[in-house]
Amino acid sequence: MSTQEKGYFTEENSADVVVSRIGPSTDARLARVMAAITRHLHAAVKEVEPTQEEWMAAIQFLTKTGHKCDDWRQEFILLSDVMGVSMLVDAINNRKPSGASESTVLGPFHVPDVPELPMGANICLDGKGDPMLIKGRIVGTDGAPLAGVKLDVWQTNDDGFYDVQQKGIQPDFNLRGVFRTADDGTYHFWGAKPRFYPIPDDGPVGQLLGKLGRHPYRPAHLHFILEAAGFETLITHIFDPDDRYIHSDAVFGVKESLLAKFDLIEDPVRISAEGAQGPFYEVVHNFVLAPTT
Amino acid sequence: MSTQEKGYFTEENSADVVVSRIGPSTDARLARVMAAITRHLHAAVKEVEPTQEEWMAAIQFLTKTGHKCDDWRQEFILLSDVMGVSMLVDAINNRKPSGASESTVLGPFHVPDVPELPMGANICLDGKGDPMLIKGRIVGTDGAPLAGVKLDVWQTNDDGFYDVQQKGIQPDFNLRGVFRTADDGTYHFWGAKPRFYPIPDDGPVGQLLGKLGRHPYRPAHLHFILEAAGFETLITHIFDPDDRYIHSDAVFGVKESLLAKFDLIEDPVRISAEGAQGPFYEVVHNFVLAPTT
Repeated sequence: MSTQEKGYFTEENSADVVVSRIGPSTDARLARVMAAITRHLHAAVKEVEPTQEEWMAAIQFLTKTGHKCDDWRQEFILLSDVMGVSMLVDAINNRKPSGASESTVLGPFHVPDVPELPMGANICLDGKGDPMLIKGRIVGTDGAPLAGVKLDVWQTNDDGFYDVQQKGIQPDFNLRGVFRTADDGTYHFWGAKPRFYPIPDDGPVGQLLGKLGRHPYRPAHLHFILEAAGFETLITHIFDPDDRYIHSDAVFGVKESLLAKFDLIEDPVRISAEGAQGPFYEVVHNFVLAPTT
Repeated sequence: MSTQEKGYFTEENSADVVVSRIGPSTDARLARVMAAITRHLHAAVKEVEPTQEEWMAAIQFLTKTGHKCDDWRQEFILLSDVMGVSMLVDAINNRKPSGASESTVLGPFHVPDVPELPMGANICLDGKGDPMLIKGRIVGTDGAPLAGVKLDVWQTNDDGFYDVQQKGIQPDFNLRGVFRTADDGTYHFWGAKPRFYPIPDDGPVGQLLGKLGRHPYRPAHLHFILEAAGFETLITHIFDPDDRYIHSDAVFGVKESLLAKFDLIEDPVRISAEGAQGPFYEVVHNFVLAPTT
């Protein structure tokens, strides 16, 4: 028997030996995933050549990241986010046909079972920030308007926090709502102009960002989940292109097609026509859904 | 500006965008390490193409692994061990000159400040198992015997546990000792023939091993740390080549050069000469230390 046939480990054959131990009755998908992870992990270690102290620092970092996780905080998702892995997984799972609207990360602040509101309702219950009217049309890739599409929307308030981050401070369901498109595929509702905000940066991931000279901010955005029978569910944001962090989203969520236009409306005729109390921001953004394949 | 110059993320440029965010004043070593980890991590994700559910399962696995860690358990080191990464880091950091004895993993059960014992002492304080006499000579790569080398040795008892795993059950410092070589470089002491034992397998890493069709056992071995002024410290084991798990160590610690010979001595003359009560195992193992460079 050669050294490798005996299962002995050397620096040269390291990944092969580890992969060769995967048993024959292992689930085929798990076996493929673990083989790939093992090979890439060993390749990374061979490139980096960590000292024992560096390897222990990596172990300690992962341990602290695990210890930071609880029912309200998922530090490993944050790590995945800031390493661009969450967006990569999103991209791999949402390759859209030409013309369909693009996806981006769900984020940790979605809430299920939010009340459905009538078209035109104002989801800004705390009255903070600049009023914003969002409207548009939802169509299929064939251009036909889609009626009854469920829009699930959420955003931060003007202090940069989601309602669930400030329970008891913000009204319940502040800046959240579910709407359905009209027969002509249109939607409109009122919110508040969103603001940039930091991802939670008081843990190991925030410390890592600091050491890498990176800031923890996400540029201002609104979240959407669009659901319609016969179409792929679209999880996405629209972003403020003038935000100072638009080119450096801490979680890499920005795509060019997701940039919206935030127009300040000061014309008294428009203000009156929309029933507003004063100047407001208007965002017109259309979405194109891909049929399920 | 191109999409990439704007810092926007695509499936194609994902790792480049993440690496490009590393700030110019980042510690050069950290920057290099994080760039390599990012590129290999993205390459692994692109090869595996995880579903969102699979990615979340990976997040949950890492979270459970973190939650299993406490002052007495280091589940991420176990993960590193069973993935062969601990041995790879060991190999990278212990490339020995030709002829020098090879290293292997330290393991989690070393204890500092163990009492120094006179040559020939018996470290088996619980009287369990088959008596074993270990002896040999320690020399430099030039063949010259090394006097006063510190040997720090430890092993499991006959139940397959280290003393620190059974505090209050085993005597303190059971099967541990520190010795120093004589002027001619020789050493000898008594212990108990070691047994195979499982790594802690009641956590997420043990579950993973199970799913991969792998057992959690380490073949029988004795641990050594050899320290001498002017020489590289050697952290190693000697293994029982007849152990049933010698070709499938759960942590990949076995190297061919670390196989020792465990001879059963039944000759009454030898038994009497060594002052033994009956048959015993004899292990003769020499070590060669590399001078510090």
